Amino acid sequence: MKEPSTPPVTVLLTDLYQLTMVTAYHELGMEQPAVFEFFVRSLPAGRGFLLAAGLRQVLDYLEGLCFEPADLEWLGQTGRFKPDALRRLSAMRFSGDVDAMPEGTVFFANEPVLRVTAPLPEAQLVESRVINLLNLQTTIASKAARCRLAAVDRKLVDFGMRRAHGAEAALLAARACYVAGFDATATVEAGRRFGIPITGTMAHSFIQAHDDETGAFRDFARVHPRGLTILIDTYDTVRAARAVVDLARQGLTVEAVRLDSGDLATLAREVRAVLDAGGCGRTRIVCSGNLDEEAITGLLAAGAPIDSFGVGTRLDVSADAPYLDCVYKLQEYAGRPRRKRSSGKATWPGRKQVFRESDVNGCIAGDVVGLLEEKLPGRALLQPVMRGGRALEHPSLDEIRARTRRELNSLPAACRRIEGPVPLEASISTALRELAARVDREFP
Amino acid sequence: MKEPSTPPVTVLLTDLYQLTMVTAYHELGMEQPAVFEFFVRSLPAGRGFLLAAGLRQVLDYLEGLCFEPADLEWLGQTGRFKPDALRRLSAMRFSGDVDAMPEGTVFFANEPVLRVTAPLPEAQLVESRVINLLNLQTTIASKAARCRLAAVDRKLVDFGMRRAHGAEAALLAARACYVAGFDATATVEAGRRFGIPITGTMAHSFIQAHDDETGAFRDFARVHPRGLTILIDTYDTVRAARAVVDLARQGLTVEAVRLDSGDLATLAREVRAVLDAGGCGRTRIVCSGNLDEEAITGLLAAGAPIDSFGVGTRLDVSADAPYLDCVYKLQEYAGRPRRKRSSGKATWPGRKQVFRESDVNGCIAGDVVGLLEEKLPGRALLQPVMRGGRALEHPSLDEIRARTRRELNSLPAACRRIEGPVPLEASISTALRELAARVDREFP
Repeated sequence: MKEPSTPPVTVLLTDLYQLTMVTAYHELGMEQPAVFEFFVRSLPAGRGFLLAAGLRQVLDYLEGLCFEPADLEWLGQTGRFKPDALRRLSAMRFSGDVDAMPEGTVFFANEPVLRVTAPLPEAQLVESRVINLLNLQTTIASKAARCRLAAVDRKLVDFGMRRAHGAEAALLAARACYVAGFDATATVEAGRRFGIPITGTMAHSFIQAHDDETGAFRDFARVHPRGLTILIDTYDTVRAARAVVDLARQGLTVEAVRLDSGDLATLAREVRAVLDAGGCGRTRIVCSGNLDEEAITGLLAAGAPIDSFGVGTRLDVSADAPYLDCVYKLQEYAGRPRRKRSSGKATWPGRKQVFRESDVNGCIAGDVVGLLEEKLPGRALLQPVMRGGRALEHPSLDEIRARTRRELNSLPAACRRIEGPVPLEASISTALRELAARVDREFP
Repeated sequence: MKEPSTPPVTVLLTDLYQLTMVTAYHELGMEQPAVFEFFVRSLPAGRGFLLAAGLRQVLDYLEGLCFEPADLEWLGQTGRFKPDALRRLSAMRFSGDVDAMPEGTVFFANEPVLRVTAPLPEAQLVESRVINLLNLQTTIASKAARCRLAAVDRKLVDFGMRRAHGAEAALLAARACYVAGFDATATVEAGRRFGIPITGTMAHSFIQAHDDETGAFRDFARVHPRGLTILIDTYDTVRAARAVVDLARQGLTVEAVRLDSGDLATLAREVRAVLDAGGCGRTRIVCSGNLDEEAITGLLAAGAPIDSFGVGTRLDVSADAPYLDCVYKLQEYAGRPRRKRSSGKATWPGRKQVFRESDVNGCIAGDVVGLLEEKLPGRALLQPVMRGGRALEHPSLDEIRARTRRELNSLPAACRRIEGPVPLEASISTALRELAARVDREFP
């Protein structure tokens, strides 16, 4: 299915300094082409790779970028901008080019993921929101991809809306999880917006609002018999599993039971035994409650008979690594490569490409970050995705998911593993090192 | 200034199970009054208190709650809901009562922060978004309050928009920081939306786009002379500070210089010396770059002459504690107290109040969680904020900030301290313990 475009967010969702710089560039006549690249300086501990996500929302943002009359009026009232400056802002659109790794590509530190080439004011203006969008979805997709690897072929559902950081975070986290290989989400609006399958039945409150648990199960089944999942841990999990068996004997089709607390491995085994002995061999077991990729690994290693995992909070905020050390840096202006040399934050100058070589099994053998014009062996990861301010064809979410599957399969074992993963380190090409040295001589 | 209401988010930003439960309640005729309370089960490590924030957005959400025709049409297309169920949804509004701790109140584990009393379907429907809003702002405000305590009287600015989790997170993080006592934000839209002072001047890219650094400073000052802050760490911080002194001698008023990398304590001292020796004693020093409450404490303990801190990523995602173990639980239905007993997740039943006693200095002496109808000593923290679906008078952001100041001053030393804080533990009243035991007997 075709993914719809993202509703626009006001252009004032930016850092004030973008506006002071843009108006300065306009007034100073600094409107030559600039090249900015987005990359991650170093991977968070506990990540052996990152999964690119969020490009679609970036392109939608760039296509829709403009200052509305109300934005300009408010900016005028701040007294910070001259009428001429506001007139220049009112005419601004994004007219540049974007090259990027397609969503669902795995990548590593210091690899440009997205390159913007546009007149300096335009390329500058978009920095804050581009980072905001790519950081969020890449952070969540990378965590979700680890859950996907840990869960092997079990079903995975995003349960995290309530503790995601606000509305947009919840929706884009659901999307990022789906990009990474999740099967469904509990978030209804993400189902509508992105076409992601939605799932969900009852909470503890439904049971508690009834005077007895079995009555609650029966009541729920009467109203929503299709795809019935019954929550069985409100009072006594194993006792509730026996009640489920009784209901099944009375003709109810219970598709699944959900466990949300306690020792999930032990309880899942006990519940499985009760269900199997009671003729409910086809009733699946769904588990949730403080799960993440490590918990899933532990449960499956313990042989817990769990068919499906609902993963929430720790995923939707990427609790162990809630942000990326990601930046969007000027690499070239007016045809001259540029470089920041701030302590601990130096960057590689110029327009770059990532070249990826694979071994005979399709496994990543190594990445090289080189200059765009270099002809190095391997697949070039950054591809054209926008020209002259218009996005080229968007892949569907299904195509992105297929890419993710191929990419996760291409990861070296050290990158893939859940405990103590070791990321691949991209090499820097000789030509790029030479360029950096030359830039240092030019800007002493 | 009066705070404007929050733009509505679709009612479908919820978990699917809320809709399956609500339609079941409608069909089953379970529409008696229900009482749900929002509370935090345990504080994250590294927090000695939490600061309540986000209530305003919750009340705006409840007042605006309704299913639009497009929402119902889409739900109908899922095939999950009968036409009658959709008709019932279309008529739903939130008609209930809300009692809550005012924003800017400090609180601890197991203390109800918000209580919703409404017909069961309404009280149930709002769970996911109520948690989503309170979790986000309370998480960020609690981190920001620690920054406020660490920074003592230094100026604090929120720089975190780019790595906040999406648009709403960025805006509400700016608000939460302001609630907690920050002085300003870099996020322009937060300035427009909430009236928070905005600040910001230049990024490294502005310097890099110029062929020489001093030329960049001069160019910027020409366009934006007012409140001039110059970024001095792009190449060599101390050398750039000398360039600032030269510019000042040529008549430029440099209000502040910003350092964003390196050993900030040492550099701030060196820069201060250069500025003072050069007659720029009134030029302030702003520091940013991977800051949080611990870094601020360290810098001030080292005597670094820093006037103002820009705090970004670690604050806007609350990096060390990016979520709260917060829940919204059914406590009473149809006049009968209810209790969940799931392993490790048991709740205290009934309608509750938090009673806070203070010592002669106004410092919190202890909190007791008791039954609403109990008459216990101390100040009752939950107050009426909505009746019959209409919000009572909202405090202004200034009033909320004044409350925060008083509340932070009332914290015991163990709760306040930055390193190894120890939260206060609320006691549970005898009457509440007795009620819990009685409920356990009634729902065996």
